[in-house]
Amino acid sequence: MKALWLDAEWNPRPEYKLNKRERETKRAYRGNQVYFNPKLELREIPKPEPGPGEVLIKVKACGVCGSDVHFYEKEPDGYTMYPGHCKLPVVIGHEWSGVVEEIGAEVRDLAPGDRVCVEEMAWCGVCTPCRAGMPNQCLDLEEIGFTMNGAFAEYVVTQPKYCWKIDGIIEAYGDEEKGFEVGAMVEPCSVAYNGMFVRGGGFQPGGHMAIFGAGPIGLAAVGLARASGAAKIFCFEPIPERRELAKKMGADYVFDPVQLQKEGTDIGEMIMDLTDGVGIAMGVEAAGVSPQTYPIMEETLAIKGKIVQIGMGGERTPVLLVRVQYQGASIHGAVGHSGHDIFPSVIRLMAAKRLDMLPIVTARFPLDQALEAILRTSERRDGKVMVKP
Amino acid sequence: MKALWLDAEWNPRPEYKLNKRERETKRAYRGNQVYFNPKLELREIPKPEPGPGEVLIKVKACGVCGSDVHFYEKEPDGYTMYPGHCKLPVVIGHEWSGVVEEIGAEVRDLAPGDRVCVEEMAWCGVCTPCRAGMPNQCLDLEEIGFTMNGAFAEYVVTQPKYCWKIDGIIEAYGDEEKGFEVGAMVEPCSVAYNGMFVRGGGFQPGGHMAIFGAGPIGLAAVGLARASGAAKIFCFEPIPERRELAKKMGADYVFDPVQLQKEGTDIGEMIMDLTDGVGIAMGVEAAGVSPQTYPIMEETLAIKGKIVQIGMGGERTPVLLVRVQYQGASIHGAVGHSGHDIFPSVIRLMAAKRLDMLPIVTARFPLDQALEAILRTSERRDGKVMVKP
Amino acid sequence: MKALWLDAEWNPRPEYKLNKRERETKRAYRGNQVYFNPKLELREIPKPEPGPGEVLIKVKACGVCGSDVHFYEKEPDGYTMYPGHCKLPVVIGHEWSGVVEEIGAEVRDLAPGDRVCVEEMAWCGVCTPCRAGMPNQCLDLEEIGFTMNGAFAEYVVTQPKYCWKIDGIIEAYGDEEKGFEVGAMVEPCSVAYNGMFVRGGGFQPGGHMAIFGAGPIGLAAVGLARASGAAKIFCFEPIPERRELAKKMGADYVFDPVQLQKEGTDIGEMIMDLTDGVGIAMGVEAAGVSPQTYPIMEETLAIKGKIVQIGMGGERTPVLLVRVQYQGASIHGAVGHSGHDIFPSVIRLMAAKRLDMLPIVTARFPLDQALEAILRTSERRDGKVMVKP
Amino acid sequence: MKALWLDAEWNPRPEYKLNKRERETKRAYRGNQVYFNPKLELREIPKPEPGPGEVLIKVKACGVCGSDVHFYEKEPDGYTMYPGHCKLPVVIGHEWSGVVEEIGAEVRDLAPGDRVCVEEMAWCGVCTPCRAGMPNQCLDLEEIGFTMNGAFAEYVVTQPKYCWKIDGIIEAYGDEEKGFEVGAMVEPCSVAYNGMFVRGGGFQPGGHMAIFGAGPIGLAAVGLARASGAAKIFCFEPIPERRELAKKMGADYVFDPVQLQKEGTDIGEMIMDLTDGVGIAMGVEAAGVSPQTYPIMEETLAIKGKIVQIGMGGERTPVLLVRVQYQGASIHGAVGHSGHDIFPSVIRLMAAKRLDMLPIVTARFPLDQALEAILRTSERRDGKVMVKP
Repeated sequence: MKALWLDAEWNPRPEYKLNKRERETKRAYRGNQVYFNPKLELREIPKPEPGPGEVLIKVKACGVCGSDVHFYEKEPDGYTMYPGHCKLPVVIGHEWSGVVEEIGAEVRDLAPGDRVCVEEMAWCGVCTPCRAGMPNQCLDLEEIGFTMNGAFAEYVVTQPKYCWKIDGIIEAYGDEEKGFEVGAMVEPCSVAYNGMFVRGGGFQPGGHMAIFGAGPIGLAAVGLARASGAAKIFCFEPIPERRELAKKMGADYVFDPVQLQKEGTDIGEMIMDLTDGVGIAMGVEAAGVSPQTYPIMEETLAIKGKIVQIGMGGERTPVLLVRVQYQGASIHGAVGHSGHDIFPSVIRLMAAKRLDMLPIVTARFPLDQALEAILRTSERRDGKVMVKP
Repeated sequence: MKALWLDAEWNPRPEYKLNKRERETKRAYRGNQVYFNPKLELREIPKPEPGPGEVLIKVKACGVCGSDVHFYEKEPDGYTMYPGHCKLPVVIGHEWSGVVEEIGAEVRDLAPGDRVCVEEMAWCGVCTPCRAGMPNQCLDLEEIGFTMNGAFAEYVVTQPKYCWKIDGIIEAYGDEEKGFEVGAMVEPCSVAYNGMFVRGGGFQPGGHMAIFGAGPIGLAAVGLARASGAAKIFCFEPIPERRELAKKMGADYVFDPVQLQKEGTDIGEMIMDLTDGVGIAMGVEAAGVSPQTYPIMEETLAIKGKIVQIGMGGERTPVLLVRVQYQGASIHGAVGHSGHDIFPSVIRLMAAKRLDMLPIVTARFPLDQALEAILRTSERRDGKVMVKP
Repeated sequence: MKALWLDAEWNPRPEYKLNKRERETKRAYRGNQVYFNPKLELREIPKPEPGPGEVLIKVKACGVCGSDVHFYEKEPDGYTMYPGHCKLPVVIGHEWSGVVEEIGAEVRDLAPGDRVCVEEMAWCGVCTPCRAGMPNQCLDLEEIGFTMNGAFAEYVVTQPKYCWKIDGIIEAYGDEEKGFEVGAMVEPCSVAYNGMFVRGGGFQPGGHMAIFGAGPIGLAAVGLARASGAAKIFCFEPIPERRELAKKMGADYVFDPVQLQKEGTDIGEMIMDLTDGVGIAMGVEAAGVSPQTYPIMEETLAIKGKIVQIGMGGERTPVLLVRVQYQGASIHGAVGHSGHDIFPSVIRLMAAKRLDMLPIVTARFPLDQALEAILRTSERRDGKVMVKP
Repeated sequence: MKALWLDAEWNPRPEYKLNKRERETKRAYRGNQVYFNPKLELREIPKPEPGPGEVLIKVKACGVCGSDVHFYEKEPDGYTMYPGHCKLPVVIGHEWSGVVEEIGAEVRDLAPGDRVCVEEMAWCGVCTPCRAGMPNQCLDLEEIGFTMNGAFAEYVVTQPKYCWKIDGIIEAYGDEEKGFEVGAMVEPCSVAYNGMFVRGGGFQPGGHMAIFGAGPIGLAAVGLARASGAAKIFCFEPIPERRELAKKMGADYVFDPVQLQKEGTDIGEMIMDLTDGVGIAMGVEAAGVSPQTYPIMEETLAIKGKIVQIGMGGERTPVLLVRVQYQGASIHGAVGHSGHDIFPSVIRLMAAKRLDMLPIVTARFPLDQALEAILRTSERRDGKVMVKP
């Protein structure tokens, strides 16, 4: 079968100290410290076969994520730019949906023909965090499209416990094509959902919301804010195409933060004015530039306001804690999308058309042109680029 | 000024034991045990004057509530049917909005011309529950339109701490007339909001919701469910006109429970089918017939599901606790609408047009015909009947 | 090896309708509707062998639970009295600790010599509730000592994901004998913990607490209340020996409810007096007689108070919901003890000696006399009866 | 009457921009930017008289707080060191208890002879945050001992809504002297309680806890952690006398962070070892040196762990948000002690002897020597220094 194959040399930087698990499993926690000279190519590989507890899924749609682009991009010294957990070689692609084609002998809850989307985080289910209901904190995590073969391919083998049926979505859109595309976006929406409603604990309807960054996670956050009772929704994003998408998803105000700064606009003051001095009940950091977004959030936090940290950045962020204190506010860290009823909740929101992500799909490529899809995404002016067989 | 005046004889039933506070204050906890031969009439009374810490408000709209009707209706033996807290004589009317006309010398945060809606619960602010932020549990509660003169009148005097500005609503509707009507419905919406989001603690967006009763509180619950991320919304209501309104407010399924029972439909099974076996994340009891609604809710509670009890009924409700246990579910009791940022949250939802209550206003009467408005409401086929000066 | 073997005839009562899963798996949801003529005997059975993902554990201590007694007791018509989920024949015993003796080839996180206690609920980990972090609501639950062989035996085979190390406890008691006994009580303590802190969501330290029933779960609730900041702790229990144990566990007031009623004491009034009118922040129903305990709890609920329902009873309980409403209170249903970090939290409390359950062990029997241990427990005057090899 | 009188010149630093409220009320938000040349002296002032809604309280004990010392201390350029909200001249002293001596005509809930402690934060009760149950975020806050006359004096006049009866405490200690001292410490304990249980939302019993700083707030946090179910309690404090007090309050491990660093101990690693890799469920920052304590907390946060920020510091703290994210953790800001049932909860914990603060009183002075008490406190080796009439 065809698959988008990523390989690189295992060549840990001299200053990077591999830990025991990394040495044993060859799963690097920080890809860009270990993998040199990454190469991405569409190649023919054997069609996988499901084990007794596994399922074989024919891929119908797979979205391109920023990390797919980072894999491909190189640091000046030739290492991959992807900073996270990975094990190469691997078929990449992790935002996807498809049809169950074959099931292993022990599988009971899925059947051939079932239409599903799939979690990217392959949590173990037996470590202490997993047993505590915290699979996003799994101590023995594998990741589809990062440490296990993913979905820029014709087929993927995985476990039923990562699969969720999307019949409701397909029915709502009245069209399999569209339904699978939307189903492929359950994963990024679930990342936003986890931050806002699980780790962040939600907000009282009628609160104002500010979302920083209008990449796919930020756009999902805008859509979720709209669906779940935010009063006014502010979105900050420098790329014009994405600001347009943010409006479509339901943002009331979209701003280019770079432009505002150029003009000398005091962003905090502006938000306070537009909210009649109330401020924001929740600020979602989905831009990955916390040192720039925190000063705005600190200044505009409503009483009891929450900052939800989803974007990743390696460096320390200077936080004016005294503002968090005076507002009786809090900061909530989030990674992942598994557990907590997140996937089924997002699917139900989509099936009820409370959350419509379809408008953010701005480009589609066949699997044969998966590499072009990655290149296109690297231009960073799309909502979501979709690869389809 | 004109006012709708309710009077009755203080004639405690022989078997009813007045407590100390009732004897001292003549505020009866249970009106129907004390007040005999109620009479309601539009009469001329002196225009009230605000004290130093008070404001005088010119009423612009006042909705008719079920309790206004109960006041008027008599038990067969001549006592008022209203079972709650009251002190007669009193001007009734407690769901209202208006314009500040005059302020007392000590008032700082309101000014003549301010357009406001007003809490019905006149919490003391100094008892232990009030100091704990639980004004709906105030130990020295007065109630506008029940123990203090209300808003089926040209003017009301009250304290600024019960008033909330509604400029945002008026601006959103682009029309003072409509804005004041919507503003007059902040109170009943806040009763639903308190149950669902404060005492009930909300629900994860994407959960299904069942609302029992489509009177104004139930209709507000439907609208709030729609605004805040419910997936499928079920509403049960025997009156056809109200079922239509429930649809307008956003219910996906509306049913006549009486009809369903006649037809032998297993309501619980039906809900479980329509939710693909998931059940309801929240059931809102706004019908006041818990013994009939609990069996349905128990059968259909999703895991972690919540029952929110808003409707009032004097009797014990037989609850199958083992179902609540097996589902890891909970039951949350709610009264009132004050505190917890409720009024401002509802106002912001309305101003952002996330919650549009205007469609439920199905009849309007001038103050001169306030008595007709009460009579009309007693037919129980309207959404909200509005009295306007 | 020796094991306490329970068998009975599969003979469903004519009026009991087996569902599909019951017919397929022979796991009865309601034992007393299906199993006729139960017989309990100590017999020799083959020592089990662990599969590749399993561990063999040598039992060191196993407490007798009320359900063990119910298994043995017969209804007048010859059916077992045990009303719950079971599949016979089975080795009973589910509150236990032991030493890992052998591990399967795939087991990584446990090693021979490890000292552990074990969850009774063998949750599947893949159904929707399990994936949502709600293993106590597992749709495909097996139960050790009910549907799988339990721990009134020399050895048990189970999965590592149900095991938790108790080294901390053994170290704290400085004695393996005592440590294993305490470890065998992690399970019942976890049932109380789940109700109070997970499903019930805990209480603000300094609240008063009332616990109904001083069986092992109730005694654990008293100990947990004491450990976690209850101000005054009330315990109601008709059996004098258990009242004494409740005092040892930290109850400030212990009462015989039967005696109080005989004397005509108004229990609600008494609690309100003893709490200076504040009432109870949490009431724990661990007596299984909700129709008798709810009137007391309703009368004494503090504002925002919680009722935690742990005791099981088949019938509907008449609840005065209006009291729950006026107090802004709530009712929380609970079953089970798995997930949510419960076992490790209880183990840490025990290891830190914040919770000392040892005093409630009032009788000890060798495995040879396991039947006598059951008989002794049926006298219902002990705290916990312990069976040891 | 005698009173400890603080005066200074109103002389705003040229670079400090007074806002409108500061100009109008002469209440400076940042004392050290405005008040020059502070002078503290015991002087004779008129005994105050209660207004109609007020009470006159005879002071029985008043603790010295760090801010009292800061008032007295001068920056090199002659401004007061106290950085917060104040209005001079004022009688300082805000951690106190006393006996009601006289009540105004409108006061109902207090009577002469009542023994009370008093909130320091004189919240208005009518601003939006107050109405939302968030008095610690009051927009029109006055503070006893900062902007209104305080309790290093024979008498104080205040409002009943800030007073809480302490009969339970006095009864528990069997001694008025001790009871009033303990009662005077309800305020600092409430600051810790607000952070840990209200803004921080508490922790599941059995979690480990780390407290940074063993001043009175930190010591209260240790005592509260001990009372409410922490497993292991770590306390970090450089002053040896305070480390001893932390042990008395219930800390299991006390460390001198300065010494540890000198020795090259990796504090994070040490905590992880001592908690068997679990980490801390809650870290309490009560040292006011966040840039030093956050790295330790970040490294040791348990999954779902919380950082509670109580200590104040003007500067930004560099936070490694990615750690907060990976642990699914959160940071909670806290100021104040009012509302949320905090004072009565702390009083009940003290009356039940779950929290015993008496051991931290290490010095006592008569009112005549109040200045000496301040000086003594400035040596920073005491627990709590108490001034008594």
